Amino acid sequence: MPRPLLTRIDHIGIACHDLDETVARYQRLFGLALASREVNEEQGVEEAMLTVTDPAAIPITRGGGSYLQLLRPLRADSPVGRFLTRRGEGIHHVGYGVLDVSQALSTLAGEGVRLVDSRPRHGSMGAAIAFLHPHDLSGVLTELVQAPVPVVAGPGA
Amino acid sequence: MPRPLLTRIDHIGIACHDLDETVARYQRLFGLALASREVNEEQGVEEAMLTVTDPAAIPITRGGGSYLQLLRPLRADSPVGRFLTRRGEGIHHVGYGVLDVSQALSTLAGEGVRLVDSRPRHGSMGAAIAFLHPHDLSGVLTELVQAPVPVVAGPGA
Repeated sequence: MPRPLLTRIDHIGIACHDLDETVARYQRLFGLALASREVNEEQGVEEAMLTVTDPAAIPITRGGGSYLQLLRPLRADSPVGRFLTRRGEGIHHVGYGVLDVSQALSTLAGEGVRLVDSRPRHGSMGAAIAFLHPHDLSGVLTELVQAPVPVVAGPGA
Repeated sequence: MPRPLLTRIDHIGIACHDLDETVARYQRLFGLALASREVNEEQGVEEAMLTVTDPAAIPITRGGGSYLQLLRPLRADSPVGRFLTRRGEGIHHVGYGVLDVSQALSTLAGEGVRLVDSRPRHGSMGAAIAFLHPHDLSGVLTELVQAPVPVVAGPGA
């Protein structure tokens, strides 16, 4: 496994009540571009990704850009919904870039880290992601993010 | 003011009880190098910076690298001490890179954002930093970080 395991801070996930208002406010204050907006039914969230560092500014070996992820729960009994009820708005998790999420999970499980996801699943913007349990990481819900391979349009595309 | 205001995610600040143990655990699990360890009496913390993305891998226009910052309070009545008492270990704040922290503060104050620091002060590894109040940022204590200008040793150095 290549060391270090983490290549970059992929995103900060911030839980909020009103996604439209929060996206507009963060865009107005910081001038950030909207990279994507999608619903993830499996995770029970509607989310927006605002670009902090464009992937084009980052060497390809680092595997992607950096984002601010704004999260609104679809249901009160979802993980983000329960977080909002318990703590109010704030940072819900951090996502780090890895080059190979399956390999990283296997390495970390071997080190005794408790996994929320034992296999990768679908994350934002086509990434393969997996969550690690906060218990072994100083209370920090931690996501590993393998960005999709960039599609380069060929001459026939 | 250049837009976007933020150039990168500079660091995630994680509050912990035992700094030695936490540094060792994060280094062992993720293979991260220790970039600095220092005491900031003014902020009431002892802290360690672990490199996630080396500044050398980032274009100079982005102004620096990305780090995981581990924070141990020097006193129970410091901001990080109170955070630990109230919430336990976890993410205390996020720091974003800016190219000019004074200019960014002035822009954000003009937008009505409440400032914790109306003027920059000394942060980790020689940076000029300032905190923004979480109230206007969805409960997220937000730090602006202007990395120091890299010192290039001349032939006479």
